[in-house]
Amino acid sequence: MGNLNDQEDRLVRTFAYPSAEAEAFLAKKGLDDQDVAARVQEVIERVRTEGVPALFAYTERFDGARITEENFRVSAEAIAEAYQQVDPEVLAALRRAAENIRRFHEKQMRPSWLEPEADGTILGQLIRPLERVGIYVPGGLASYPSSVLMNAIPAKVAGVPQIVMATPPGKDGSINPYTLVAAAEAGVDEIYRMGGAQAVAALAHGVGLPAVDKITGPGNIYVTLAKKQVYGTVDIDMLAGPSEILVIADENASSDYVAADFLSQVEHDVRAAAVLVTPSAALATAVKKAILEQMSRLPRREIMEQALRDNGAIIIVDSLLTACEVANRFAPEHLEVLTDEPFQWLGSLQQAGAIFLGPYSPEPVGDYYAGPNHVLPTGGTARFYSPLNIDTFMKKTSVIAYSRARFVQAAPDILALAQTEGLDAHAHAIALRLSPTEKGSQP
Amino acid sequence: MGNLNDQEDRLVRTFAYPSAEAEAFLAKKGLDDQDVAARVQEVIERVRTEGVPALFAYTERFDGARITEENFRVSAEAIAEAYQQVDPEVLAALRRAAENIRRFHEKQMRPSWLEPEADGTILGQLIRPLERVGIYVPGGLASYPSSVLMNAIPAKVAGVPQIVMATPPGKDGSINPYTLVAAAEAGVDEIYRMGGAQAVAALAHGVGLPAVDKITGPGNIYVTLAKKQVYGTVDIDMLAGPSEILVIADENASSDYVAADFLSQVEHDVRAAAVLVTPSAALATAVKKAILEQMSRLPRREIMEQALRDNGAIIIVDSLLTACEVANRFAPEHLEVLTDEPFQWLGSLQQAGAIFLGPYSPEPVGDYYAGPNHVLPTGGTARFYSPLNIDTFMKKTSVIAYSRARFVQAAPDILALAQTEGLDAHAHAIALRLSPTEKGSQP
Repeated sequence: MGNLNDQEDRLVRTFAYPSAEAEAFLAKKGLDDQDVAARVQEVIERVRTEGVPALFAYTERFDGARITEENFRVSAEAIAEAYQQVDPEVLAALRRAAENIRRFHEKQMRPSWLEPEADGTILGQLIRPLERVGIYVPGGLASYPSSVLMNAIPAKVAGVPQIVMATPPGKDGSINPYTLVAAAEAGVDEIYRMGGAQAVAALAHGVGLPAVDKITGPGNIYVTLAKKQVYGTVDIDMLAGPSEILVIADENASSDYVAADFLSQVEHDVRAAAVLVTPSAALATAVKKAILEQMSRLPRREIMEQALRDNGAIIIVDSLLTACEVANRFAPEHLEVLTDEPFQWLGSLQQAGAIFLGPYSPEPVGDYYAGPNHVLPTGGTARFYSPLNIDTFMKKTSVIAYSRARFVQAAPDILALAQTEGLDAHAHAIALRLSPTEKGSQP
Repeated sequence: MGNLNDQEDRLVRTFAYPSAEAEAFLAKKGLDDQDVAARVQEVIERVRTEGVPALFAYTERFDGARITEENFRVSAEAIAEAYQQVDPEVLAALRRAAENIRRFHEKQMRPSWLEPEADGTILGQLIRPLERVGIYVPGGLASYPSSVLMNAIPAKVAGVPQIVMATPPGKDGSINPYTLVAAAEAGVDEIYRMGGAQAVAALAHGVGLPAVDKITGPGNIYVTLAKKQVYGTVDIDMLAGPSEILVIADENASSDYVAADFLSQVEHDVRAAAVLVTPSAALATAVKKAILEQMSRLPRREIMEQALRDNGAIIIVDSLLTACEVANRFAPEHLEVLTDEPFQWLGSLQQAGAIFLGPYSPEPVGDYYAGPNHVLPTGGTARFYSPLNIDTFMKKTSVIAYSRARFVQAAPDILALAQTEGLDAHAHAIALRLSPTEKGSQP
């Protein structure tokens, strides 16, 4: 039993809050990696200046795949073939997930508005879809059809007419059939075999395909730093780091549920983080025990153990209100509330990507199915970034149509302000329109 | 007359569209300047690692002002004094402008929503203000009270509880009284004497003040590249370059109005751009003449001449529909439509920061007064960036609360999708909750 406790404690640290250890754990880690950034910059510059040959050379070097002009873009035949390869039951599940995602994002749509006023003035805001967006979907050994749906469906609902997908090919040039089928179901218009920083460069600078206006979707550190570098040439959704969960639980929560949710988070990646914040020391002990028990029955054990050791923590607080304070400071990507009456804490939980309330909303419900987006801000960036949403794929344009009556009424104020800022030609453009004798003026 | 024509043609080039010259003019210029970026990176790194002494040292070096802990933050007394210094009529004009800006941005507010479904499931989206934002206001010789209003009022309307302003001091540490009064009127909570890349670093990394979540507002190339570098540590509004206008006008437009609006744009900066797109060669000729005439009566003539020569153009098209096509390709910050029935083109004008319709909506109406924001995307980025708006200062959080009934219904699909992606611990977190015998499970 002493041994087991040691083993548990080595696996997941327990801190009191407030404490120096808790502070150190909550301190933000930066995303910057100068070494990676420099390599990414070189990839982007070469793809931008040397074009398609550089893009294909990097694909061969990093993905081991020989891509040519012929197989760069995925053909309609390849997509039809993918439909033959997928399990029909999984396809049906994907379609039901897609419908949920579509419905949740449709609720976010807002109309443009133009408001006429009594004197003939009209002001307003046009809210319209971007024209061409690129979604990045990780590839390699795994298949992420859910990421395809989560990126492409909101773009489609927003009305983006050209949705382009980039995903790295396998060594034989293949792309996972579930990824292709998900793209077709979601309404992706063009799919390209490319990944990494070179794909981001190609999308942003229009190499091998017309440039896009925005790039969304998560990737590894190379993809993320490439997105930062092309930011401004195109827009991006966010800079995402490793995935994370923070669970707030009280003494009545199921320790098995908390443990299972920890493990579902840390199986992603050795850099994934899982944090339990609870006023119950008894729950903390039970969760640690349950983690060890459940982990023994699951694959990916080394990944989970290392992630828990490096980025796992249990923080003991004096109350659930303090737990909300810790959650706000951490600003987690995923926040589960496993307490009696979880809704009562919603107003106190100000900083999170997505909040999962109650025992039947474990994170995979959101990852795959419920409808809200699983592309979420990480590493504390939920303080300022939002989940991928309809606004991600829209842009706004202001409309100003002043009537002559309103103009004449406003002109003295505008003149005073322009003169205060020392902008005489601004004042002149106003004064000119007040002068009835000016040549070419209109009634 | 031949001489005058030469003079006019040297001042503003005229192109046919389509043509190679027009293509070259429409080609985007990048923002990157590796040399400036490297210097900005050094400033940020030193402020981040060395803290307040480095911040004050840069302020002395770049602004010539000695700032100490005592006068770093602008005092309530200094603001009260500024109220004594400003012209009461200008203050009244500022207040009327502020009210217009407030009203326009209030119309953009959206509520959070939580939608209960029949089986007890609740999904929704919380839309809430950022906690702490930093607005950057250029300083130096000029005063930009309008920029203060345009940044701070939307943040205030959004409900941001902590609005921080940074503006570079004069050599004697002073800040223009109109800037201070505008900040007080708009509801800015804290004002700091700092500018340039060092101010961006201090806001992002919390040097001399608590870090902010987002930095908005235009600045010079140092400020812009600093914003790009801290992007991800905090959010930013956009990366803005030189200001620009594109005017679509037909043969009935006033050449004097077009000329005045060209000049009001190019007085800002030698890098400012002004473009007329028209099917009327007669209007083009008249505008060129009017520019020369009006310019002779205005100050800042060297700035205007150089900007017109470098970045001015008249593009002759075959129709107003083609003019819209050119405007969409340019994606201008400011787009004026000086035609008969300008509203008919609104649906064709897809890419612009703000659209000004008709003869009584010259750009200064929007710069100062009408209500829509004057912080607008430049350099073609209106394809993906929006004017500063309420959403700029809000973040979203998804809410997922599945009922047991919905969970049981959805579980087979979620299990199928998790297994397809090879994420066994995800599947385990679902399966565990289906098992009624699992220890600690809830009804």
